[in-house]
Amino acid sequence: MTDYAPPLKEMQFVLDHVAGLGAIASLPGYGEATPDLAAAILEEGGKFAAQVLAPLNATGDAAGVQLENGVLTTPEGFPAAYRAFVEAGWPALQFDPDHGGQGLPWLLSTAAMELWNSANLSFALCPMLTQGAAEMLALYGTEEQKRVYLPRMVSGAWTGTMNLTEPQAGTDLGEIRARAEPAGDGRFRIKGQKIFITFGEHDMAENIVHMVLARLPDGPKGVRGISLFLVPKYLPDGEGRPGERNDLRCLSAEDKLGIHAAPTCIMAFGEGEGAIGWLVGEENQGLAHMFAMMNNERLAVGLQGVAIMERAYQQAVGFARERIQGRDEATGEPGAPIIRHADVRRMLLTMRAKAEAGRALAYAAAAMLDTARRHPDEAVQREEAALVEFLTPIVKAWPTDAAVETASIGIQVHGGMGFIEETGAAQHYRDARILPIYEGTNGIQARDLVGRKVLRDGGETARSFLARLRKGEESLAPFQDPAVAAIRARLVDGIDALSEATEWLLHAGKDDPRRSMAAAAPYLSLAGTVAGAWLLGRGAAAAHQSLDSDAADRPFLEAKITTARFFAEHLLPPAIALRDTIARGSDPVLALAEDAF
Amino acid sequence: MTDYAPPLKEMQFVLDHVAGLGAIASLPGYGEATPDLAAAILEEGGKFAAQVLAPLNATGDAAGVQLENGVLTTPEGFPAAYRAFVEAGWPALQFDPDHGGQGLPWLLSTAAMELWNSANLSFALCPMLTQGAAEMLALYGTEEQKRVYLPRMVSGAWTGTMNLTEPQAGTDLGEIRARAEPAGDGRFRIKGQKIFITFGEHDMAENIVHMVLARLPDGPKGVRGISLFLVPKYLPDGEGRPGERNDLRCLSAEDKLGIHAAPTCIMAFGEGEGAIGWLVGEENQGLAHMFAMMNNERLAVGLQGVAIMERAYQQAVGFARERIQGRDEATGEPGAPIIRHADVRRMLLTMRAKAEAGRALAYAAAAMLDTARRHPDEAVQREEAALVEFLTPIVKAWPTDAAVETASIGIQVHGGMGFIEETGAAQHYRDARILPIYEGTNGIQARDLVGRKVLRDGGETARSFLARLRKGEESLAPFQDPAVAAIRARLVDGIDALSEATEWLLHAGKDDPRRSMAAAAPYLSLAGTVAGAWLLGRGAAAAHQSLDSDAADRPFLEAKITTARFFAEHLLPPAIALRDTIARGSDPVLALAEDAF
Repeated sequence: MTDYAPPLKEMQFVLDHVAGLGAIASLPGYGEATPDLAAAILEEGGKFAAQVLAPLNATGDAAGVQLENGVLTTPEGFPAAYRAFVEAGWPALQFDPDHGGQGLPWLLSTAAMELWNSANLSFALCPMLTQGAAEMLALYGTEEQKRVYLPRMVSGAWTGTMNLTEPQAGTDLGEIRARAEPAGDGRFRIKGQKIFITFGEHDMAENIVHMVLARLPDGPKGVRGISLFLVPKYLPDGEGRPGERNDLRCLSAEDKLGIHAAPTCIMAFGEGEGAIGWLVGEENQGLAHMFAMMNNERLAVGLQGVAIMERAYQQAVGFARERIQGRDEATGEPGAPIIRHADVRRMLLTMRAKAEAGRALAYAAAAMLDTARRHPDEAVQREEAALVEFLTPIVKAWPTDAAVETASIGIQVHGGMGFIEETGAAQHYRDARILPIYEGTNGIQARDLVGRKVLRDGGETARSFLARLRKGEESLAPFQDPAVAAIRARLVDGIDALSEATEWLLHAGKDDPRRSMAAAAPYLSLAGTVAGAWLLGRGAAAAHQSLDSDAADRPFLEAKITTARFFAEHLLPPAIALRDTIARGSDPVLALAEDAF
Repeated sequence: MTDYAPPLKEMQFVLDHVAGLGAIASLPGYGEATPDLAAAILEEGGKFAAQVLAPLNATGDAAGVQLENGVLTTPEGFPAAYRAFVEAGWPALQFDPDHGGQGLPWLLSTAAMELWNSANLSFALCPMLTQGAAEMLALYGTEEQKRVYLPRMVSGAWTGTMNLTEPQAGTDLGEIRARAEPAGDGRFRIKGQKIFITFGEHDMAENIVHMVLARLPDGPKGVRGISLFLVPKYLPDGEGRPGERNDLRCLSAEDKLGIHAAPTCIMAFGEGEGAIGWLVGEENQGLAHMFAMMNNERLAVGLQGVAIMERAYQQAVGFARERIQGRDEATGEPGAPIIRHADVRRMLLTMRAKAEAGRALAYAAAAMLDTARRHPDEAVQREEAALVEFLTPIVKAWPTDAAVETASIGIQVHGGMGFIEETGAAQHYRDARILPIYEGTNGIQARDLVGRKVLRDGGETARSFLARLRKGEESLAPFQDPAVAAIRARLVDGIDALSEATEWLLHAGKDDPRRSMAAAAPYLSLAGTVAGAWLLGRGAAAAHQSLDSDAADRPFLEAKITTARFFAEHLLPPAIALRDTIARGSDPVLALAEDAF
């Protein structure tokens, strides 16, 4: 099994030259995000990830979690690692200093989150969910709720969960049945069952704060009658310490394909008199509150895809360097490591290029989010906010689909050894498979992209995204370098294809919305690949500009350019052809009689 | 979990209208392969698969195999199911009646094998390997070897294995170190360790016949010094019954990602005085003998890909019909099964179309094999033999890559439930992952296709394959039906792309073989997709011709046409674009410095 080596140089490059950390650091309130601080976070975070979290990844997978009499035990080493994680202050990076946070840009916390997720996807889910719950509380909680809960959640001392799904209510949350009855004292009694609750119960922190969607007795039917409640495992006592146990428990932990070290719980609320909860935000606005936070969670899941790609890539490269088999294809010498075989190089480059494209997308989206929040010019805020909304389903879905594919290629590089669990490649293939599913399936992301982001405003945002792509392509024009020129040429083809596909959607969507929905997934795939090529092209141009001035980094910079060229010339063409899949191949999707399936 | 329903109508259709069972039945010796017999085999085999084998698939996956003191126990029900399989005579279908077989065409045994593999991939590996060993013995064994072993292996009473791989010798079998020393009595003493030996030890049959590659003391180095030996677990006594235990044992059974019910053994031969073995075929010709059989095994593995696609598709359709979530996209009614959502239809159709294309390829290749063996005209024999050799790596790799992708889509259709092991979708995703690896990785298949099948004869076979594709495309010309016309139009694009890619390979291969190797996998993917479209087009034309005469089957026939059109219009375009990946994107594969990975 290959150790995890945090790709610090690559991460720093993407922060600086693709996402534009310099511009982010110049935004009001982000002045502390200096290059030095960024380097220190990557360096120290990388050590923590590699030395503390990564060694627990395979052991945690093998051990899984144990549930006995409602007590859930995480794998050996997890509670101690989590304590160390909290003590080091890692959960607090992007939170408001008023609540104990460090007030750093999302862009930097995104880079840190990549480290945790590459090192140990199961472990990283716990802080990821906690941060989501904390953000929601920061946005919608009362002053009293914020006072009691926020500092403890921001520090990570208490963890958080999201309780949305019920057996009959997955994608369609309007079907939620959990109920909340006023207790008369301003509190509520929550009753109901929730499923798929990640870290719903565990032994890593002294309290767990559940954010629960439930219905008030007089709430309207459907999605407009759902409210959000804060339901802690232990009710805080007068001094804010965990006190009385609340009426909720984990009924069972699912036996899953992957992320074995992350408990996925069936939670029962209110088997007795009802779990005590507090309303968060406005009555019947629970879904709206949840979705305000969910966009960030979707970006975080996309980043998990990047993280798994990186880890699977490192595992595959490590094996390909060590495994001796066959002859060197260039020299004919026997006893060559398989990395010398052209087809193995092709597989490794595919993994690498997709990981780099995914990282560029995730970091760029984080930078847009920071700009949308802090830019002094409100017009820029609006523009960036619209763009990051457009990109959110793409950043969630494209890198997570790519992660499944990449983890699969990672096994293939290992040959027979990849199928043996001990090697470690198989875990990534199993773990990655959840990513296109949770926080809204990738089908839902595609529907969101086409329905809400392209069609709803008549293509306005999509066209402004295309204009930004064109600007990116034009900025490559001055480069004489044949690799950059080749990237630009393919990128132009890609933008043309995306533009035509967008116009087709706008046309087809008017005739019959189902036609555009049939095309949604290929459209997202096309958009994601073109966006990846755009940002890799930006990186290649920056690398080219540094080539002469930075002799020490020459091999790294040349690799950036070659990888971007591989992406554009090798991986982009089939995505470009999705234009034809969309235009011609959407009607057959609807043509088969339902009984004939 | 959805029960397995053998797709008898589809299988019969492909046998009759795509593979041409009628023509096969007219070949010398195959007269018994009447439509009635074919229908009876599908009917009875389907019952056995659905009722006996399929119910053991999930339980076998959960239980796995147990090894204690060298005794390997398969999951509950497996030994009894295997005895019933042997008693029903299923292993013997395609073997020579002289050895107890039924003398039926490969085409029919291929259809039967699909049933076993769909029902229970782990189980089906045992007869698959036994048949491979038996074929090899039939080709190269002495009369005495055939007399003692063949009837017992053909009946399935004794099972067989292939012992090729050693830790340092995977793809590169020239590195094999296992040794065989003459014992002086015509027998040999075998010593060495073999890995990845499927069903190397088990409790389902009274004896196991290992076919083992090893070196004679005076053999040349490398691949030319490897001989083939028959090494039974129990030495047959004078009456051919299992007698003395041989000096071999299973050291351990691997903990694998999938096919948990199929033991993957590390085998130790000759820890004591040496395992007793007999030479099969000629000295130092072991690899050649092994490869003569391996082509059939590769076709069989491709068929396993088809089988898993079918099973995963059925599982996904079953779930999509039952799972209620969201509104009907056409009518707006709430409480719709998810099969009404366009994106779910897209996923299901992708699975279905790939399964149908894979089946058409596998059955057509089996028919070519039958024709190559039995056609009275030697020129036809040669032509079909060359074509099936060309198609073998495609039939191995394309449906197995598609199986991994399809099983992954199958999970996606289930949403969160797909990630829970109990649902059953995850097993297919885990099981399928071995298929692109064993019997020669798909990278090796691509290398075989490009190196041995396209370049070696200067493109002659490839061009004759292209000519056959053109003939297929032209035969669609008379159809006025818009669906068939659309299929033809896309097929023509595909053939053009494959033709251009072939010429590029022939050109690039002359300059630098590594350039063509960098393009090998995309070339195979392009060739497989175009070949799939060709055969689905043949099926669509046949379905169209039957539409008017066969009113009862109209929904089935229309579905055949729609599925073929979906394949051509939705799935073919990205494959066609691999022409650009090949022509422009192969050089970047070779450009990255090795240290930079």
